[in-house]
Amino acid sequence: MKDVRYHISEKHGEKHGRAGGAPKKSDELQRFGVSMEGYLLERFDQVIEKKGYTNRSEAIRDLIRDSLVEQDWDENREIVGTVTIVYDHEVRELSDTLTDLQHQFQKLFRSTLHIHLDEHHCLEVLVVQGKGGEVKKIADRLIGTKGVKHGKFTMTTTGKDL
Amino acid sequence: MKDVRYHISEKHGEKHGRAGGAPKKSDELQRFGVSMEGYLLERFDQVIEKKGYTNRSEAIRDLIRDSLVEQDWDENREIVGTVTIVYDHEVRELSDTLTDLQHQFQKLFRSTLHIHLDEHHCLEVLVVQGKGGEVKKIADRLIGTKGVKHGKFTMTTTGKDL
Amino acid sequence: MKDVRYHISEKHGEKHGRAGGAPKKSDELQRFGVSMEGYLLERFDQVIEKKGYTNRSEAIRDLIRDSLVEQDWDENREIVGTVTIVYDHEVRELSDTLTDLQHQFQKLFRSTLHIHLDEHHCLEVLVVQGKGGEVKKIADRLIGTKGVKHGKFTMTTTGKDL
Amino acid sequence: MKDVRYHISEKHGEKHGRAGGAPKKSDELQRFGVSMEGYLLERFDQVIEKKGYTNRSEAIRDLIRDSLVEQDWDENREIVGTVTIVYDHEVRELSDTLTDLQHQFQKLFRSTLHIHLDEHHCLEVLVVQGKGGEVKKIADRLIGTKGVKHGKFTMTTTGKDL
Repeated sequence: MKDVRYHISEKHGEKHGRAGGAPKKSDELQRFGVSMEGYLLERFDQVIEKKGYTNRSEAIRDLIRDSLVEQDWDENREIVGTVTIVYDHEVRELSDTLTDLQHQFQKLFRSTLHIHLDEHHCLEVLVVQGKGGEVKKIADRLIGTKGVKHGKFTMTTTGKDL
Repeated sequence: MKDVRYHISEKHGEKHGRAGGAPKKSDELQRFGVSMEGYLLERFDQVIEKKGYTNRSEAIRDLIRDSLVEQDWDENREIVGTVTIVYDHEVRELSDTLTDLQHQFQKLFRSTLHIHLDEHHCLEVLVVQGKGGEVKKIADRLIGTKGVKHGKFTMTTTGKDL
Repeated sequence: MKDVRYHISEKHGEKHGRAGGAPKKSDELQRFGVSMEGYLLERFDQVIEKKGYTNRSEAIRDLIRDSLVEQDWDENREIVGTVTIVYDHEVRELSDTLTDLQHQFQKLFRSTLHIHLDEHHCLEVLVVQGKGGEVKKIADRLIGTKGVKHGKFTMTTTGKDL
Repeated sequence: MKDVRYHISEKHGEKHGRAGGAPKKSDELQRFGVSMEGYLLERFDQVIEKKGYTNRSEAIRDLIRDSLVEQDWDENREIVGTVTIVYDHEVRELSDTLTDLQHQFQKLFRSTLHIHLDEHHCLEVLVVQGKGGEVKKIADRLIGTKGVKHGKFTMTTTGKDL
């Protein structure tokens, strides 16, 4: 049995078309080839057409960026997240509690959107920015507030390095 | 071996404490007993304290509501969702495309929040309401728009029946 | 404002390098170019190196296949899934119930793996194959069986067309 | 505006019905009351009946355990996971690579299930046990192996404290 210790030096040849002295963060477009079985490519093309992509590169970049956002999260880097909560505004002290939380952790909150869903229910989307860990903690608090019927935390990116 | 065909009639006894003629949708609080091993309850109490819940009922209601929102989605009922996108506003025709999409499907869009993340990047949260299937489709379109770096669809609830 | 109605005919030019009379499902490798900002490519290369990929094409194919498996699920096509359950084997009638379920729906079950985690707990992985909808239903039943402490349903693929 | 600093001392009154000197980890069943709006309870009852639960306590314990498993993961405690991979067994060196990986990290691997899906495709479920972080890392490696068409990592529990 061959001993494979996962050297991936062969990748580096493929990776760098440019000379060694290149700057660390390049905005320049780079082009590389991807190979794929014909039937796989056909199915991919069908799906991305349905989703409204105008070309494959864009769809592949989106898949890649999505996997990198998860990475940012795993490494506790700075992220942007949204906390979406639906609550009954008639529950006593709920609004005060939500407002207090936002003031206690005001550095994390970027902005808030409020919608009256019906005579009882409000939806609020709070945009938070910070390290993954602290952002998640405040999201848990908001979602756990008495009177909040449903809450979801969604993680996205600052857009930098992506 | 006993043949268990998953009759669960025994549940119904536990379920209805109230008389048969009760209205279909009751806002009245009902109280029932839950049994659990001591060590499980202790861990649950620790976790919900950390998340800021003030009592167990509230935490359990949240777990239940969360499972019901998924159910709404599976059954293509009316839901509310948020589409969070981060994009580079300098990409040509991107804003036009996003605006066009919102006008084409205007009945689905409730509101939009816009934030300038830095000199290049914008975050937009679009609140959409409609059947699960059509809401998901328009979310895919928005996320697939050229220039959108990252997009996420988050499903929540109208608050009704929850 | 330009009216963009999401014609994506321009993609088709890029898509088919081969002549029109080609067979529907081709196993032949096809190669196409993908363009990407330099800094995005660098981060992607770092992440896939960490995950043990030996080249970019393989990593991109994996991202694509993963998105197609979700598609199969959405369209209720035939899928393979695994149901992982952890249970206390001392709970009365639990094994009987699990066995009964597997016999009632035997066409869906391909194989089962059983592990004794400790003196009380067993882990069982059941491999199921069928339409997405029916597979999910039987998974819910297994996970909901009294005595099952934790259960997860994982969706994968038959490998065909992927 | 009232200053709410999230003291939750009022919970402790509800929490402990038993005397102070109780042992840390109790297997004894404890019973407590949960209150809920009637319409929410009705929907919950419908859903759990569909999923085959025989009573509410069991369904609620499952929701609670599921949230605790996520917690174990966040805190890098010992977990059990399954890695489900589908691969084409004709890809050169694939089996060797998979076997090598299992030997390099043999302490993490508990057992493996293998199924021949069709003449080309195999499904393998590998049961791994260890700290959340290291288990995830080896899962990434397996999924990233050349020739693996689809891979999923599923996290569950050792069953202890749950």
